[in-house]
Amino acid sequence: MRGPGRSPFRQRVRVMQGYVPGEQPRDRRYVKLNTNENPYPPSPRVIEALRDAVGESLRLYPRPLADELRERAARSYHLAPENVLVGNGSDELLSIVMRAVVEPGEPVAYPVPTYVLYDTLVELHDGEPVRIPFAPDFSLPPELVEAPARLVIVCNPNSPSGTMIPPRALRPLCAARERLVVIDEAYVDFADANCLDLLGEFSNVLVLRTLSKSYSLAGMRIGLALGAAAAIAELAKVKDSYNVNRLSIAAGAAALRDGRWMEANVRRIRRTRESLSQGLVALGFSVPPSQANFVLARRPGENLAPLYEGLKRRGVLVRYFPTPDLYDALRITVGTDEEVAVMLRVLAQLLG
Amino acid sequence: MRGPGRSPFRQRVRVMQGYVPGEQPRDRRYVKLNTNENPYPPSPRVIEALRDAVGESLRLYPRPLADELRERAARSYHLAPENVLVGNGSDELLSIVMRAVVEPGEPVAYPVPTYVLYDTLVELHDGEPVRIPFAPDFSLPPELVEAPARLVIVCNPNSPSGTMIPPRALRPLCAARERLVVIDEAYVDFADANCLDLLGEFSNVLVLRTLSKSYSLAGMRIGLALGAAAAIAELAKVKDSYNVNRLSIAAGAAALRDGRWMEANVRRIRRTRESLSQGLVALGFSVPPSQANFVLARRPGENLAPLYEGLKRRGVLVRYFPTPDLYDALRITVGTDEEVAVMLRVLAQLLG
Repeated sequence: MRGPGRSPFRQRVRVMQGYVPGEQPRDRRYVKLNTNENPYPPSPRVIEALRDAVGESLRLYPRPLADELRERAARSYHLAPENVLVGNGSDELLSIVMRAVVEPGEPVAYPVPTYVLYDTLVELHDGEPVRIPFAPDFSLPPELVEAPARLVIVCNPNSPSGTMIPPRALRPLCAARERLVVIDEAYVDFADANCLDLLGEFSNVLVLRTLSKSYSLAGMRIGLALGAAAAIAELAKVKDSYNVNRLSIAAGAAALRDGRWMEANVRRIRRTRESLSQGLVALGFSVPPSQANFVLARRPGENLAPLYEGLKRRGVLVRYFPTPDLYDALRITVGTDEEVAVMLRVLAQLLG
Repeated sequence: MRGPGRSPFRQRVRVMQGYVPGEQPRDRRYVKLNTNENPYPPSPRVIEALRDAVGESLRLYPRPLADELRERAARSYHLAPENVLVGNGSDELLSIVMRAVVEPGEPVAYPVPTYVLYDTLVELHDGEPVRIPFAPDFSLPPELVEAPARLVIVCNPNSPSGTMIPPRALRPLCAARERLVVIDEAYVDFADANCLDLLGEFSNVLVLRTLSKSYSLAGMRIGLALGAAAAIAELAKVKDSYNVNRLSIAAGAAALRDGRWMEANVRRIRRTRESLSQGLVALGFSVPPSQANFVLARRPGENLAPLYEGLKRRGVLVRYFPTPDLYDALRITVGTDEEVAVMLRVLAQLLG
């Protein structure tokens, strides 16, 4: 299908707006709590590995399957290397999944509100989004299990709610073997549980991880897909040949070798998350229990665009989604204790 | 269309083999002349910029459009930043073009033999490859101009022939404004001319560049698409949000700032290319005039698989394509003078 005119570009692309990432303004210094970055630096072992890897060998292509990182990830997650595909961020892995699974008109189901990139990618691949609303408590919608879709995506913990569906509750979703169930665990290191055990039980489950959040490496673009060897092999066919560069491979492997550094930062962020949630509740927000490195602060029925703008004017960036299901909420990243204290103080001023 | 069985993966993907990159064996040290890497290291200014960029800021996402590199590329090529899209290698940019242009069943035309990734990508995007054979002299096939395709790709200089179509000869191809003409200039820094001037004349032309070859940065995955602002804007919609990481941005900008380093290496490679071509001709090969950092060595009608295998057994890797149009040729990267001398000596032994 093409529209009128003589553009070589697809009509579907021409009318698209594209995914709009969280803003990264440079006009002034902000308390930046809008893109779920980790407030703490990456491990010193990552820095060291990167300094070692910077050199003449950059003239050579990386290993196509990022062997060093693939093997290290397999060890970290008690899998074989054949169960791991490394991506240029988990965004690329989502795109790879779409390329490998979605035919034109193909339904792709996911509970909403969730990571809005799913909408963008399904549209781009000519799929048919099947957006199934979460109940107010963000539990698994029963309609998702019955949805006639070969591809189902569950962001767990979910963004922007921060809530988590218990792994065992996802088992019915995985029972249909002709369906690929993608569990996007971008935030799972901040949670009490994860879905890796489902991999042993179901060959049609794919777990996505990223080193952007818990490992403080958003700037390096490192994602991991974990799943059955047969599924990983299909995905590998449709990726770019050299999708992850030499430095990201080195950084990722070093980060996974230093799991303790990540865990220490996660403990701090979980403590701050608790005080952030309490502070928001004290200011009259309702806050679903978060298992991620952000919280959703809601004032049901109240348009929070002015509050978002007020925060921004006073140097605090949070995420606001101007959609019917999220206009009454702000998504706030768990920063340092100091950043969170500043944000709560400004919020109290704006509300008072 | 899905085949029998209960796989969630597309039939088209399940029967695919995927693009097979040049082999990167690790069993021994090779004289590695198979993947067109630059034998000389990247600029010391790149190394320095990378060392500076390695640090705490890696916890933050990169700028979505890789601003620093985009702006630097615009200066280098006398364009505006809006005329530049930065990619995770030019392979990603090719994939982005397909996503933005190719509808199911859409014809995509290119002269062959050429970069085999085009076949893979067109197949993956459900397009219809229109493969138009080059004449023996690798000039522009007139049928390409008439091909009813909204997307035409010309690798120029072409791989694996190394030959170049003069920029002015491509003008008729660009005259149809509803057609996007992608000129893949991955190897153009090794050539006497380039097609940048066509950008001023035609808003439907896209020039692709890579820093992998001439700038010795294959390990960093940095590609550039240059074209009209409106075309670049459409492509930007379908890329991953953060497709190029912080270190690649820093490395790319530093590399472009030190154009002299690249040019000095290119001069050396062009000199070696000359002696390599002469050496091959002396051994009885026919060698089309190369404008790239590799040459195609041909013995018309003779299967060169045994020669390729013989070279490999003796520690020399070159590229062999087991296809009807290339079985009688080897593609040999221009390495250092020493590497080329070793290769020619082994070749002489095998042929003698």
